[in-house]
Amino acid sequence: MASLEMRRVSDLAHILITGAAGFIGSHLTDRLLQEGHTVSGVDNFTRGRRENLCSALQHRTFHLVENDLSTEAGCIDAFTAACRIAPIDSVWHLAANSDVQAGVADPSIDLRDTFLTTFHVVGAMRRFGARAIVFASSSAIYGVHNGPLAEDSGPLFPISNYGAMKLASEGIISAATESFLSSAYVMRFPNVVGGRATHGVIFDFIEKLRRSPSVLDVLGDGNQQKPYLHVSELVDAMIFITDHSRERVNCFNISVCDEGATVRSIAETVVRLIAPGTPIGYEANERGWVGDVPSFRYTIDRLSALGWRAKLSSMKAVERATIECHAQKGACSS
Amino acid sequence: MASLEMRRVSDLAHILITGAAGFIGSHLTDRLLQEGHTVSGVDNFTRGRRENLCSALQHRTFHLVENDLSTEAGCIDAFTAACRIAPIDSVWHLAANSDVQAGVADPSIDLRDTFLTTFHVVGAMRRFGARAIVFASSSAIYGVHNGPLAEDSGPLFPISNYGAMKLASEGIISAATESFLSSAYVMRFPNVVGGRATHGVIFDFIEKLRRSPSVLDVLGDGNQQKPYLHVSELVDAMIFITDHSRERVNCFNISVCDEGATVRSIAETVVRLIAPGTPIGYEANERGWVGDVPSFRYTIDRLSALGWRAKLSSMKAVERATIECHAQKGACSS
Repeated sequence: MASLEMRRVSDLAHILITGAAGFIGSHLTDRLLQEGHTVSGVDNFTRGRRENLCSALQHRTFHLVENDLSTEAGCIDAFTAACRIAPIDSVWHLAANSDVQAGVADPSIDLRDTFLTTFHVVGAMRRFGARAIVFASSSAIYGVHNGPLAEDSGPLFPISNYGAMKLASEGIISAATESFLSSAYVMRFPNVVGGRATHGVIFDFIEKLRRSPSVLDVLGDGNQQKPYLHVSELVDAMIFITDHSRERVNCFNISVCDEGATVRSIAETVVRLIAPGTPIGYEANERGWVGDVPSFRYTIDRLSALGWRAKLSSMKAVERATIECHAQKGACSS
Repeated sequence: MASLEMRRVSDLAHILITGAAGFIGSHLTDRLLQEGHTVSGVDNFTRGRRENLCSALQHRTFHLVENDLSTEAGCIDAFTAACRIAPIDSVWHLAANSDVQAGVADPSIDLRDTFLTTFHVVGAMRRFGARAIVFASSSAIYGVHNGPLAEDSGPLFPISNYGAMKLASEGIISAATESFLSSAYVMRFPNVVGGRATHGVIFDFIEKLRRSPSVLDVLGDGNQQKPYLHVSELVDAMIFITDHSRERVNCFNISVCDEGATVRSIAETVVRLIAPGTPIGYEANERGWVGDVPSFRYTIDRLSALGWRAKLSSMKAVERATIECHAQKGACSS
């Protein structure tokens, strides 16, 4: 069985995507199908949505596998079903809790959905002979730092259980590359925006305006500033990295190369595009909620050196995502 | 309830020690009892040994709590029992799988005994109002680095599941200091040696010589070089750190300030002290086993700056530990 390290994405492969019906997972699924790959998409539909797979389900080489990957039995069932199609060349592991705040209130959510999924997926890869993994990690592993965040930065003291369980997942994957994985891609995502999003600041603002159109109340003072990457560009970067980096452990920050967008500018954009004239209210405190990192600087020199660069600025990504989220009834309203 | 950050060890406290019947846990228990503290010592006796608590059990202020901390229910039972004595001032969390190789073969051991114990202990601390934790982390979180390893070094790509689950534990503790813990002490242990050890190179060599006295076969080429700290000095450093460092997250490498001892010199010491004249055989390969870090340099500048320094060199610690392990039937034979 060929592994990712011996392939380029131009080589057609059988790819297993976990969390395939989720926000990022479904965009990735669409893109890899477009490229001609066979995709087994696994989801348990607790956060993932069937409508996100409308396009994929039309595709001859897409196979939906409905399983809960947070248990060993669920993983074995999913891999057994996928292996009936063909041996698995690589696993792109995106299944996770995506609601950081939910995991602050109840740590067992991140334990189960973010970490135990990774633990059992890696165990199933060992059992079923899948030797290459692409893992959706997060800037949240870094916690609060003063300096710029490079891939080799430490210490790693995340301030959310979400970040902690992404870090734990990186650790288990790292240990597995020592024993049986031939290659691992650890990709640390920034804030990602776009259609089908189910959380995040743009989603929250649109929902708030739907519920109470008279004013947009913002958590925090609006000065938090972070980079925002459009999901189409994230998927592009992920594929680019697997095509161009050939280490045993390939760790990359993925982000856009600008200072980011402030919460204030996002609020103003959302109001301008979908509810012109609505007043915006702010709070006095700096940080929005426990587990929220108020601002960070993310170094993407490694990704730039590899040759990839985002086309959309943070503000442009926010604008496009606002329009997409507002338009897509299925993605942004329940 | 007073927390560790407001106390010095000279203030008498009620301390809950997890893994109290283990190698390091039992030495720590003895020492904290000597200092006058009340100690609730928790162990499930899967790896911990009752004979390690012989001395503690004579002590008026020692309370043995027999529970499995890898489940939420076990943790709640243990904390309920301990809180009947007095409110818990701090938790010194040492319960873990100590057999790195066992976790390479079966990752679920490190998941359960090293990580889920931490996860549920932290959850119980939240529930029972314990606000200060001392955590026994490990140099294994660093994986293989070229340069010297300081507390802020990255990236953190451990090569064993043991290291991965220690890293995961650090992450959960770090996240908890953001939400409810008032202080956390993350102490990264080197190789620790001394009486009551149940694993490690000295233990293995003594056991091998007992089983086949004609030759001592060494895994690897004998050139692996690591620092070795005697358990009495480790306990001393732990208490010193909690007495002198007052950050919210206090992270310290603990080690001895020398180049370490090679496996070859340890083999020669063991043979000299307990089986003079026995021939020693080596293998050609550098690394002993999957998950073993062949050598590393550990920076302890932070601990030195705080004012602590080991009195025994790595070689002196190895000598003392060899004599202790050989003498203690209960600790080194089963």
